[in-house]
Amino acid sequence: MGQPFVVGIAGGSGSGKTALTRALAERFADDAAVIFHDNYYNRQDALSYDERVLVNYDAPEAFDNALLVEHLDELLAGRDVESPTYDYAQHNRSDVTVPVCSRPIIFVEGVLVLADEALRARFDLKLYVDTDADVRILRRIKRDVLERGRTLESVEAQYLATVKPMHERYVESSKLWADVIVPEGGRNSVALETIAGGLVANLRGLAHESLRTIGEE
Amino acid sequence: MGQPFVVGIAGGSGSGKTALTRALAERFADDAAVIFHDNYYNRQDALSYDERVLVNYDAPEAFDNALLVEHLDELLAGRDVESPTYDYAQHNRSDVTVPVCSRPIIFVEGVLVLADEALRARFDLKLYVDTDADVRILRRIKRDVLERGRTLESVEAQYLATVKPMHERYVESSKLWADVIVPEGGRNSVALETIAGGLVANLRGLAHESLRTIGEE
Repeated sequence: MGQPFVVGIAGGSGSGKTALTRALAERFADDAAVIFHDNYYNRQDALSYDERVLVNYDAPEAFDNALLVEHLDELLAGRDVESPTYDYAQHNRSDVTVPVCSRPIIFVEGVLVLADEALRARFDLKLYVDTDADVRILRRIKRDVLERGRTLESVEAQYLATVKPMHERYVESSKLWADVIVPEGGRNSVALETIAGGLVANLRGLAHESLRTIGEE
Repeated sequence: MGQPFVVGIAGGSGSGKTALTRALAERFADDAAVIFHDNYYNRQDALSYDERVLVNYDAPEAFDNALLVEHLDELLAGRDVESPTYDYAQHNRSDVTVPVCSRPIIFVEGVLVLADEALRARFDLKLYVDTDADVRILRRIKRDVLERGRTLESVEAQYLATVKPMHERYVESSKLWADVIVPEGGRNSVALETIAGGLVANLRGLAHESLRTIGEE
Protein backbone atom coordinates (compact mmCIF):
# COMPACT_ATOMS: atom_id res chain seq x y z
CA MET A 1 0.00 0.00 0.00
CA GLY A 2 0.98 3.61 -0.42
CA GLN A 3 2.03 6.28 1.99
CA PRO A 4 0.87 5.91 5.61
CA PHE A 5 -2.46 7.51 6.49
CA VAL A 6 -1.92 9.98 9.34
CA VAL A 7 -4.66 10.74 11.89
CA GLY A 8 -4.25 13.71 14.26
CA ILE A 9 -6.25 13.37 17.50
CA ALA A 10 -6.57 16.51 19.65
CA GLY A 11 -8.82 17.58 22.53
CA GLY A 12 -8.51 19.08 25.99
CA SER A 13 -6.88 17.51 29.01
CA GLY A 14 -9.24 14.82 30.32
CA SER A 15 -11.33 14.80 27.12
CA GLY A 16 -10.84 11.09 26.48
CA LYS A 17 -8.57 11.55 23.45
CA THR A 18 -5.95 9.14 24.79
CA ALA A 19 -8.62 6.48 25.40
CA LEU A 20 -9.92 6.95 21.84
CA THR A 21 -6.38 6.82 20.44
CA ARG A 22 -5.56 3.63 22.32
CA ALA A 23 -8.85 2.00 21.29
CA LEU A 24 -8.20 2.83 17.62
CA ALA A 25 -4.56 1.74 17.81
CA GLU A 26 -5.53 -1.52 19.50
CA ARG A 27 -8.09 -2.16 16.79
CA PHE A 28 -5.42 -1.87 14.09
CA ALA A 29 -2.69 -3.63 16.09
CA ASP A 30 0.40 -4.06 13.88
CA ASP A 31 -1.11 -1.87 11.19
CA ALA A 32 -0.85 1.22 13.39
CA ALA A 33 1.81 3.31 15.08
CA VAL A 34 1.08 5.90 17.78
CA ILE A 35 3.01 9.08 18.48
CA PHE A 36 2.28 11.03 21.66
CA HIS A 37 2.93 14.77 21.39
CA ASP A 38 3.85 14.80 25.10
CA ASN A 39 7.04 12.94 24.20
CA TYR A 40 8.06 15.91 22.08
CA TYR A 41 8.31 18.51 24.84
CA ASN A 42 11.35 20.72 24.23
CA ARG A 43 14.77 19.66 25.40
CA GLN A 44 15.63 22.25 28.08
CA ASP A 45 19.28 21.64 28.90
CA ALA A 46 20.01 25.37 28.98
CA LEU A 47 17.58 25.95 31.86
CA SER A 48 18.18 25.15 35.51
CA TYR A 49 15.78 22.79 37.29
CA ASP A 50 14.15 25.75 39.06
CA GLU A 51 13.67 27.51 35.73
CA ARG A 52 12.28 24.36 34.13
CA VAL A 53 9.67 24.04 36.87
CA LEU A 54 8.32 27.46 35.93
CA VAL A 55 7.87 26.72 32.20
CA ASN A 56 4.29 26.80 30.88
CA TYR A 57 3.86 23.23 29.64
CA ASP A 58 0.36 23.88 28.34
CA ALA A 59 1.47 26.43 25.73
CA PRO A 60 2.22 25.56 22.07
CA GLU A 61 5.84 26.76 22.36
CA ALA A 62 6.60 24.06 24.96
CA PHE A 63 6.72 21.49 22.13
CA ASP A 64 9.47 20.62 19.67
CA ASN A 65 7.19 20.50 16.66
CA ALA A 66 10.12 20.76 14.25
CA LEU A 67 11.36 17.38 15.48
CA LEU A 68 7.90 15.86 15.31
CA VAL A 69 7.45 17.10 11.73
CA GLU A 70 10.84 15.60 10.83
CA HIS A 71 9.78 12.28 12.35
CA LEU A 72 6.41 12.31 10.60
CA ASP A 73 8.14 12.91 7.28
CA GLU A 74 10.42 9.95 7.93
CA LEU A 75 7.45 7.73 8.79
CA LEU A 76 5.60 8.96 5.70
CA ALA A 77 8.64 7.97 3.64
CA GLY A 78 8.42 4.47 5.12
CA ARG A 79 11.34 4.81 7.52
CA ASP A 80 11.21 4.05 11.26
CA VAL A 81 12.21 6.69 13.82
CA GLU A 82 13.41 6.86 17.41
CA SER A 83 10.85 8.94 19.29
CA PRO A 84 12.11 10.88 22.30
CA THR A 85 10.59 10.39 25.74
CA TYR A 86 10.18 12.91 28.51
CA ASP A 87 11.37 12.80 32.10
CA TYR A 88 8.58 14.49 34.07
CA ALA A 89 10.57 14.36 37.32
CA GLN A 90 13.42 16.31 35.70
CA HIS A 91 11.17 18.45 33.47
CA ASN A 92 13.44 17.67 30.56
CA ARG A 93 13.83 15.28 27.66
CA SER A 94 15.05 11.89 28.75
CA ASP A 95 17.99 10.09 27.12
CA VAL A 96 15.70 7.13 26.50
CA THR A 97 14.12 6.86 23.05
CA VAL A 98 11.43 4.48 21.82
CA PRO A 99 11.29 3.05 18.31
CA VAL A 100 8.25 4.01 16.25
CA CYS A 101 7.80 1.95 13.10
CA SER A 102 6.32 3.24 9.89
CA ARG A 103 2.91 1.59 9.60
CA PRO A 104 -0.15 1.98 7.31
CA ILE A 105 -1.89 4.15 9.92
CA ILE A 106 -0.11 6.63 12.18
CA PHE A 107 -2.01 8.20 15.07
CA VAL A 108 -0.61 11.47 16.44
CA GLU A 109 -2.18 12.30 19.80
CA GLY A 110 -1.95 15.43 21.90
CA VAL A 111 -3.74 18.42 23.33
CA LEU A 112 -2.23 20.77 20.77
CA VAL A 113 -1.62 18.65 17.65
CA LEU A 114 -4.25 20.56 15.64
CA ALA A 115 -2.86 23.95 16.73
CA ASP A 116 0.26 23.69 14.54
CA GLU A 117 0.07 24.35 10.81
CA ALA A 118 2.96 22.08 9.83
CA LEU A 119 1.48 19.19 11.80
CA ARG A 120 -2.00 19.77 10.37
CA ALA A 121 -0.58 19.70 6.85
CA ARG A 122 0.53 16.10 7.47
CA PHE A 123 -2.79 14.82 8.82
CA ASP A 124 -5.14 13.01 6.42
CA LEU A 125 -7.86 12.97 9.08
CA LYS A 126 -8.14 15.51 11.90
CA LEU A 127 -10.16 14.45 14.95
CA TYR A 128 -11.07 16.64 17.92
CA VAL A 129 -12.39 14.98 21.06
CA ASP A 130 -14.85 17.41 22.61
CA THR A 131 -15.82 16.98 26.25
CA ASP A 132 -17.26 19.53 28.68
CA ALA A 133 -14.76 21.33 30.89
CA ASP A 134 -16.37 20.09 34.12
CA VAL A 135 -16.10 16.45 33.04
CA ARG A 136 -12.51 17.06 31.96
CA ILE A 137 -11.39 18.61 35.27
CA LEU A 138 -13.06 15.76 37.19
CA ARG A 139 -11.07 13.22 35.15
CA ARG A 140 -7.87 15.22 35.59
CA ILE A 141 -8.35 15.37 39.37
CA LYS A 142 -8.96 11.63 39.54
CA ARG A 143 -5.88 10.90 37.45
CA ASP A 144 -3.51 13.34 39.15
CA VAL A 145 -4.69 12.93 42.73
CA LEU A 146 -5.65 9.25 42.85
CA GLU A 147 -3.18 7.79 40.34
CA ARG A 148 -0.24 10.19 40.53
CA GLY A 149 -0.41 11.14 44.21
CA ARG A 150 -0.59 14.91 43.68
CA THR A 151 -2.51 17.19 46.03
CA LEU A 152 -5.86 18.65 45.04
CA GLU A 153 -4.42 22.13 45.68
CA SER A 154 -1.55 21.64 43.22
CA VAL A 155 -3.91 20.28 40.55
CA GLU A 156 -6.22 23.25 41.03
CA ALA A 157 -3.35 25.76 40.94
CA GLN A 158 -1.93 24.37 37.69
CA TYR A 159 -5.36 24.03 36.13
CA LEU A 160 -6.32 27.64 36.76
CA ALA A 161 -2.87 29.08 36.02
CA THR A 162 -2.10 27.39 32.70
CA VAL A 163 -4.30 24.42 31.69
CA LYS A 164 -7.56 26.38 31.49
CA PRO A 165 -6.27 29.62 29.89
CA MET A 166 -4.14 27.71 27.36
CA HIS A 167 -7.08 25.42 26.60
CA GLU A 168 -9.32 28.38 25.90
CA ARG A 169 -6.71 30.21 23.84
CA TYR A 170 -5.16 27.40 21.80
CA VAL A 171 -6.90 24.05 22.20
CA GLU A 172 -10.55 25.04 21.89
CA SER A 173 -9.78 27.25 18.89
CA SER A 174 -7.95 24.40 17.14
CA LYS A 175 -11.30 22.57 16.96
CA LEU A 176 -11.94 24.77 13.92
CA TRP A 177 -9.51 22.60 11.95
CA ALA A 178 -11.19 19.31 12.82
CA ASP A 179 -12.74 17.16 10.09
CA VAL A 180 -14.73 15.17 12.62
CA ILE A 181 -15.58 16.03 16.22
CA VAL A 182 -16.00 13.16 18.67
CA PRO A 183 -18.05 13.94 21.78
CA GLU A 184 -16.84 12.20 24.93
CA GLY A 185 -13.81 10.39 23.50
CA GLY A 186 -13.15 6.93 24.86
CA ARG A 187 -16.70 6.21 25.97
CA ASN A 188 -18.15 6.82 22.52
CA SER A 189 -18.22 3.36 20.97
CA VAL A 190 -20.39 4.41 18.02
CA ALA A 191 -17.82 7.02 16.99
CA LEU A 192 -15.04 4.46 17.45
CA GLU A 193 -16.82 1.98 15.15
CA THR A 194 -17.52 4.68 12.56
CA ILE A 195 -13.96 6.01 12.49
CA ALA A 196 -12.32 2.58 12.61
CA GLY A 197 -14.63 1.40 9.85
CA GLY A 198 -13.91 4.54 7.85
CA LEU A 199 -10.17 3.89 8.10
CA VAL A 200 -10.53 0.24 7.05
CA ALA A 201 -12.81 1.08 4.13
CA ASN A 202 -10.73 3.99 2.89
CA LEU A 203 -7.40 2.23 3.26
CA ARG A 204 -8.75 -0.85 1.52
CA GLY A 205 -10.38 1.23 -1.19
CA LEU A 206 -13.86 0.02 -0.30
CA ALA A 207 -15.52 3.32 0.55
CA HIS A 208 -17.11 3.60 -2.87
CA GLU A 209 -18.25 0.01 -3.12
CA SER A 210 -21.84 -1.10 -3.08
CA LEU A 211 -23.23 -2.95 -0.11
CA ARG A 212 -24.88 -5.40 -2.48
CA THR A 213 -21.70 -7.40 -2.84
CA ILE A 214 -22.32 -8.67 0.69
CA GLY A 215 -24.69 -11.33 -0.57
CA GLU A 216 -22.25 -12.31 -3.30
CA GLU A 217 -19.25 -12.87 -1.07
CA MET B 1 -28.29 -8.68 5.48
CA GLY B 2 -30.17 -7.94 8.67
CA GLN B 3 -32.25 -5.03 9.80
CA PRO B 4 -31.63 -1.68 8.08
CA PHE B 5 -29.01 0.59 9.65
CA VAL B 6 -30.62 3.94 10.50
CA VAL B 7 -28.63 7.19 10.48
CA GLY B 8 -30.15 10.35 12.01
CA ILE B 9 -28.70 13.58 10.61
CA ALA B 10 -29.54 16.78 12.49
CA GLY B 11 -28.15 20.31 12.54
CA GLY B 12 -29.38 23.88 12.30
CA SER B 13 -31.03 25.54 9.32
CA GLY B 14 -28.31 26.21 6.75
CA SER B 15 -25.81 23.92 8.48
CA GLY B 16 -25.21 21.80 5.41
CA LYS B 17 -27.00 18.71 6.77
CA THR B 18 -29.08 18.28 3.62
CA ALA B 19 -25.97 18.45 1.45
CA LEU B 20 -24.27 15.84 3.63
CA THR B 21 -27.38 13.64 3.57
CA ARG B 22 -27.65 13.85 -0.22
CA ALA B 23 -23.94 13.14 -0.67
CA LEU B 24 -24.17 10.06 1.56
CA ALA B 25 -27.39 8.86 -0.07
CA GLU B 26 -25.91 9.33 -3.53
CA ARG B 27 -22.87 7.34 -2.50
CA PHE B 28 -25.04 4.39 -1.50
CA ALA B 29 -27.53 4.76 -4.37
CA ASP B 30 -29.99 1.83 -4.30
CA ASP B 31 -28.68 0.70 -0.93
CA ALA B 32 -30.07 3.80 0.79
CA ALA B 33 -33.41 5.43 1.48
CA VAL B 34 -33.84 9.00 2.70
CA ILE B 35 -36.57 10.38 4.90
CA PHE B 36 -36.93 14.13 5.35
CA HIS B 37 -38.45 15.20 8.66
CA ASP B 38 -39.94 18.25 6.91
CA ASN B 39 -42.35 15.90 5.15
CA TYR B 40 -43.74 14.93 8.54
CA TYR B 41 -45.11 18.31 9.57
CA ASN B 42 -48.45 17.88 11.31
CA ARG B 43 -51.64 17.61 9.32
CA GLN B 44 -53.56 20.77 10.29
CA ASP B 45 -57.02 20.30 8.81
CA ALA B 46 -58.66 21.67 11.95
CA LEU B 47 -56.97 25.06 11.60
CA SER B 48 -57.94 27.81 9.19
CA TYR B 49 -55.33 29.09 6.72
CA ASP B 50 -54.85 32.22 8.82
CA GLU B 51 -54.28 30.10 11.91
CA ARG B 52 -51.89 27.79 10.05
CA VAL B 53 -49.75 30.77 8.98
CA LEU B 54 -49.20 31.62 12.62
CA VAL B 55 -47.97 28.16 13.67
CA ASN B 56 -44.37 27.94 14.90
CA TYR B 57 -42.84 25.56 12.35
CA ASP B 58 -39.47 25.56 14.08
CA ALA B 59 -40.76 23.97 17.31
CA PRO B 60 -40.63 20.21 18.01
CA GLU B 61 -44.44 19.99 18.37
CA ALA B 62 -44.90 21.04 14.72
CA PHE B 63 -43.90 17.52 13.66
CA ASP B 64 -45.90 14.30 13.54
CA ASN B 65 -43.19 12.18 15.12
CA ALA B 66 -45.65 9.39 15.94
CA LEU B 67 -46.18 8.83 12.21
CA LEU B 68 -42.45 8.98 11.49
CA VAL B 69 -41.76 6.42 14.23
CA GLU B 70 -44.46 4.16 12.77
CA HIS B 71 -42.85 4.48 9.32
CA LEU B 72 -39.36 3.81 10.66
CA ASP B 73 -40.61 0.67 12.37
CA GLU B 74 -42.15 -0.49 9.10
CA LEU B 75 -38.89 0.15 7.23
CA LEU B 76 -36.94 -1.63 9.98
CA ALA B 77 -39.24 -4.61 9.53
CA GLY B 78 -38.39 -4.63 5.82
CA ARG B 79 -41.65 -3.13 4.60
CA ASP B 80 -41.94 -0.09 2.31
CA VAL B 81 -43.98 2.95 3.34
CA GLU B 82 -45.77 5.88 1.74
CA SER B 83 -44.16 9.00 3.15
CA PRO B 84 -46.36 12.10 3.36
CA THR B 85 -45.33 15.34 1.66
CA TYR B 86 -46.02 18.88 2.73
CA ASP B 87 -47.72 21.70 0.88
CA TYR B 88 -45.83 24.82 1.93
CA ALA B 89 -48.23 27.11 0.08
CA GLN B 90 -51.17 25.72 2.07
CA HIS B 91 -49.20 25.17 5.29
CA ASN B 92 -50.70 21.71 5.51
CA ARG B 93 -49.98 18.11 4.62
CA SER B 94 -50.46 17.45 0.95
CA ASP B 95 -52.53 14.56 -0.40
CA VAL B 96 -49.51 13.40 -2.37
CA THR B 97 -47.37 10.66 -0.85
CA VAL B 98 -44.01 9.34 -1.99
CA PRO B 99 -42.93 5.71 -1.69
CA VAL B 100 -39.92 5.06 0.55
CA CYS B 101 -38.46 1.59 0.19
CA SER B 102 -36.85 -0.36 2.98
CA ARG B 103 -33.13 -0.38 2.18
CA PRO B 104 -29.95 -1.46 4.04
CA ILE B 105 -29.28 2.15 5.08
CA ILE B 106 -31.97 4.66 6.01
CA PHE B 107 -31.03 8.30 6.43
CA VAL B 108 -33.42 10.45 8.49
CA GLU B 109 -32.68 14.13 8.00
CA GLY B 110 -34.05 17.17 9.81
CA VAL B 111 -33.34 20.07 12.12
CA LEU B 112 -34.96 18.33 15.07
CA VAL B 113 -34.49 14.59 14.48
CA LEU B 114 -32.15 14.24 17.47
CA ALA B 115 -34.52 16.18 19.75
CA ASP B 116 -37.06 13.35 19.99
CA GLU B 117 -36.43 10.36 22.23
CA ALA B 118 -38.45 7.84 20.20
CA LEU B 119 -36.61 8.85 17.01
CA ARG B 120 -33.21 8.71 18.71
CA ALA B 121 -33.98 5.20 19.97
CA ARG B 122 -34.22 4.05 16.34
CA PHE B 123 -30.95 5.59 15.13
CA ASP B 124 -27.86 3.37 14.99
CA LEU B 125 -25.69 6.41 14.22
CA LYS B 126 -26.54 9.96 15.28
CA LEU B 127 -24.83 12.75 13.32
CA TYR B 128 -25.02 16.47 14.10
CA VAL B 129 -23.83 18.93 11.47
CA ASP B 130 -22.38 21.88 13.34
CA THR B 131 -21.94 25.16 11.52
CA ASP B 132 -21.61 28.67 12.94
CA ALA B 133 -24.82 30.69 13.15
CA ASP B 134 -23.49 33.47 10.90
CA VAL B 135 -22.65 31.02 8.11
CA ARG B 136 -26.05 29.38 8.54
CA ILE B 137 -28.05 32.62 8.27
CA LEU B 138 -26.06 33.63 5.19
CA ARG B 139 -26.97 30.33 3.51
CA ARG B 140 -30.59 30.69 4.56
CA ILE B 141 -30.80 34.19 3.12
CA LYS B 142 -29.28 33.03 -0.16
CA ARG B 143 -31.69 30.08 -0.38
CA ASP B 144 -34.84 31.92 0.65
CA VAL B 145 -34.21 35.25 -1.12
CA LEU B 146 -32.38 34.14 -4.27
CA GLU B 147 -33.96 30.72 -4.84
CA ARG B 148 -37.39 31.09 -3.27
CA GLY B 149 -38.06 34.73 -4.02
CA ARG B 150 -38.77 35.82 -0.44
CA THR B 151 -37.88 39.27 0.85
CA LEU B 152 -34.93 39.84 3.11
CA GLU B 153 -37.28 41.40 5.67
CA SER B 154 -39.49 38.32 5.86
CA VAL B 155 -36.46 36.02 6.22
CA GLU B 156 -35.10 38.21 9.01
CA ALA B 157 -38.45 38.40 10.80
CA GLN B 158 -38.93 34.60 10.76
CA TYR B 159 -35.32 33.97 11.71
CA LEU B 160 -35.43 36.20 14.78
CA ALA B 161 -38.98 35.23 15.81
CA THR B 162 -38.72 31.43 15.64
CA VAL B 163 -35.70 29.95 13.83
CA LYS B 164 -33.07 31.38 16.19
CA PRO B 165 -34.86 30.89 19.53
CA MET B 166 -36.00 27.37 18.62
CA HIS B 167 -32.48 26.55 17.41
CA GLU B 168 -30.99 27.67 20.69
CA ARG B 169 -33.60 25.90 22.79
CA TYR B 170 -34.03 22.59 20.95
CA VAL B 171 -31.58 22.08 18.10
CA GLU B 172 -28.31 23.14 19.69
CA SER B 173 -29.12 21.16 22.84
CA SER B 174 -29.85 18.03 20.80
CA LYS B 175 -26.16 18.01 19.80
CA LEU B 176 -25.61 16.37 23.18
CA TRP B 177 -27.07 13.16 21.72
CA ALA B 178 -24.76 13.05 18.72
CA ASP B 179 -22.28 10.20 18.28
CA VAL B 180 -20.30 12.16 15.73
CA ILE B 181 -20.28 15.90 15.05
CA VAL B 182 -19.55 17.04 11.50
CA PRO B 183 -18.29 20.60 11.16
CA GLU B 184 -19.53 22.40 8.03
CA GLY B 185 -21.70 19.62 6.58
CA GLY B 186 -21.67 19.32 2.83
CA ARG B 187 -18.29 20.94 2.28
CA ASN B 188 -16.51 18.51 4.57
CA SER B 189 -15.29 15.79 2.20
CA VAL B 190 -13.01 14.16 4.78
CA ALA B 191 -15.95 13.62 7.13
CA LEU B 192 -18.03 12.31 4.20
CA GLU B 193 -15.35 9.75 3.30
CA THR B 194 -14.93 8.71 6.94
CA ILE B 195 -18.65 8.26 7.58
CA ALA B 196 -19.37 6.60 4.22
CA GLY B 197 -16.40 4.29 4.77
CA GLY B 198 -17.57 3.58 8.31
CA LEU B 199 -21.00 2.59 7.00
CA VAL B 200 -19.55 0.31 4.32
CA ALA B 201 -17.14 -1.35 6.72
CA ASN B 202 -19.67 -1.83 9.49
CA LEU B 203 -22.44 -3.05 7.22
CA ARG B 204 -20.09 -5.46 5.49
CA GLY B 205 -18.65 -6.62 8.80
CA LEU B 206 -15.17 -5.40 7.92
CA ALA B 207 -14.56 -2.94 10.75
CA HIS B 208 -12.57 -5.44 12.75
CA GLU B 209 -10.52 -6.79 9.87
CA SER B 210 -6.83 -6.27 9.46
CA LEU B 211 -5.49 -4.02 6.74
CA ARG B 212 -2.90 -6.67 5.92
CA THR B 213 -5.37 -8.58 3.80
CA ILE B 214 -5.00 -5.83 1.23
CA GLY B 215 -1.87 -7.37 -0.15
CA GLU B 216 -3.51 -10.77 -0.26
CA GLU B 217 -6.57 -9.77 -2.21
